[in-house]
Amino acid sequence: MSALTLEAARRVVDGALAHARAAGFKPIAVLVLDAGGHPLAFAREDGASPGRWAIAHGKAHGAIMLGTGSRALMARAEAQAYFVAAANGALGGALVPVPGGVLLRAADGEVIGAVGVSGETSDNDEAAALAGAAAAGLRADPG
Amino acid sequence: MSALTLEAARRVVDGALAHARAAGFKPIAVLVLDAGGHPLAFAREDGASPGRWAIAHGKAHGAIMLGTGSRALMARAEAQAYFVAAANGALGGALVPVPGGVLLRAADGEVIGAVGVSGETSDNDEAAALAGAAAAGLRADPG
Amino acid sequence: MSALTLEAARRVVDGALAHARAAGFKPIAVLVLDAGGHPLAFAREDGASPGRWAIAHGKAHGAIMLGTGSRALMARAEAQAYFVAAANGALGGALVPVPGGVLLRAADGEVIGAVGVSGETSDNDEAAALAGAAAAGLRADPG
Amino acid sequence: MSALTLEAARRVVDGALAHARAAGFKPIAVLVLDAGGHPLAFAREDGASPGRWAIAHGKAHGAIMLGTGSRALMARAEAQAYFVAAANGALGGALVPVPGGVLLRAADGEVIGAVGVSGETSDNDEAAALAGAAAAGLRADPG
Repeated sequence: MSALTLEAARRVVDGALAHARAAGFKPIAVLVLDAGGHPLAFAREDGASPGRWAIAHGKAHGAIMLGTGSRALMARAEAQAYFVAAANGALGGALVPVPGGVLLRAADGEVIGAVGVSGETSDNDEAAALAGAAAAGLRADPG
Repeated sequence: MSALTLEAARRVVDGALAHARAAGFKPIAVLVLDAGGHPLAFAREDGASPGRWAIAHGKAHGAIMLGTGSRALMARAEAQAYFVAAANGALGGALVPVPGGVLLRAADGEVIGAVGVSGETSDNDEAAALAGAAAAGLRADPG
Repeated sequence: MSALTLEAARRVVDGALAHARAAGFKPIAVLVLDAGGHPLAFAREDGASPGRWAIAHGKAHGAIMLGTGSRALMARAEAQAYFVAAANGALGGALVPVPGGVLLRAADGEVIGAVGVSGETSDNDEAAALAGAAAAGLRADPG
Repeated sequence: MSALTLEAARRVVDGALAHARAAGFKPIAVLVLDAGGHPLAFAREDGASPGRWAIAHGKAHGAIMLGTGSRALMARAEAQAYFVAAANGALGGALVPVPGGVLLRAADGEVIGAVGVSGETSDNDEAAALAGAAAAGLRADPG
C-alpha cells in the first residue's frame, strides 16, 4: 500500500490552482484527503465563499468512502436520488454527488487519496482536480 | 424472545462472504445487528471502500428500526421519497433504502436481527445477505 | 505502507475472544479498525451489553486519531481532563480514554490499525486486546 | 476590514512547518482559518495521526469563536471546566482549550483569522503557530 505524501498532496493543490488561474475560473477551493478520508492539504482562494471547504470535502470524502469518483455518484443520484440522499445521511453529510471529487490512485490502481474542488461549474471543478493529479504524476479517476 | 447468538451471527457473515467469493463479487462488507439494532458481527473484505461499513449499517439498521427489509424501503422511497429522506434524518442517517438489508427471523417469525451487505450491486448485496442467513439456518426477509 | 488485511483483523478478534474465555472474563466486544479508523472486523459476545460496540469503537478510534494507545489517553485525561473532553467533542464522541484501545503496528513501527475491547475491567480489556495482536503476530502499542 | 489572503495563510502554514522541522518536532498539522472561522489553508505532515486535523481545527476555531487565543481558554478550563465543556458542545465539538490556537490580527488589532497547530506538546504547537504568524508578518495573540 502506497501512502500519499504531503509533498504530493501539495503538488495536487498547486496544480489545480494553476489550472484555475490559467483558465480564468472563479476562485476555487482544493482539498486533498488520504486513503482514510482525512485531510492532508487544503487551499481556498481569495473570494471563494466560506462553504467551499464543505463542498470540496463532500466531493472528496464521498469518493473515498464509496470508492468511486463523484461523477459516478452524480449518475447514481440521477438514477436513484433516494440512495444518494440516504448515503449522505449515513456519511454524516459528507458526500456531494457532482463532478469535482476525483480518486487518486497508485500505479497499481490502489486508491491512495482523493482531491475535491469547488468554486466553479462542476465540470470545471473536475478539470482543475484532474490537472492537479496530473501535476503530481498521479493516476486520477473522476468516476 | 429468541436471541441471535454471536455464533449464528458469524455464520451469517461467513455465509455471505462465501457467496460473494463464489459468485465473483467485488469486495463486500457484511454486518449483523441484533433485535435492538446493535452490532454483533462485522467483516469488511480487502479492497472494499471505507464507507461500506456505513452503507451496510444503514441497510440493516433501517430494516430493524422500521421492521421491514430494505427492499421494501426502496419501494417506499420510490413512492414517497420525502418520507424515507425524513426517516433517514429521524434515525440519525442510519437508514439506506436499497436492497441488501435483510431481517433475520426466528422459526415463529419473530425478528431477531438483521444483516446488511454493501459493496456490489444492491441485488447482489441482497443475494449475499440471503446466502448468509441460509448458511445460519435462519429465516430471511428481504422486504 | 502496509495494510491490515481482513484475515489478520479476524485473527486479532479471535485471539482476543480466546483470551477472554480462557481467563473467565465477562462477555466482551472486540473491534479492529484500519489505519484510517474504519471498521474491518467486529464481534460482540453473547451477554455483552449493546453499548460495548460504542465503547470499543471509542477506544480504538481515539487511539488511531491521536496516534497513541488509549492507556496514554487515560494518563492525559487524569492530568488534563478538559483536553480529553474537548478532543472527544472534536472527534464526534468517538474517543474513550481508558485502557483497551491498542495500536497495531507493522514491523517498521507504522500504525496499520487498532483494536478496541470493552466488557471487562479496562486492564482486562487491554490484556485481551494484546492477546489478539499477539495471535495475529502484530506489534501492539497500548499507550 | 482587512482580509487574510490565501498567500498570507500559506506563509503562516509554511512558517509553522519550517519551525517544526528546524526544532525537530514530531509531525504536525497546521490550519489557518479566516475571521469567520472557515478554512483557508491546511497541511498535515507525513506521520501525523489523522485526528490532528480535528485538534488543530478545534484550537483555531475555538479561538475565533470566543475571540481569544486557546491558551486563555486553557486558563478558563482550569478555572471553570464545565464552562469550556459546555462551550465545546455549543460549538459542535470544535473548541480545544490547550495552547496552539493563536489569533491573527491586523496592524490595528482587528482579528483577521487564526492558526491552529497540533502534533507536538501544546507549548511547542503554540511556538510553531507563533513562528508561522511571524513568517507572514502578522500580529499573533496566543491568549
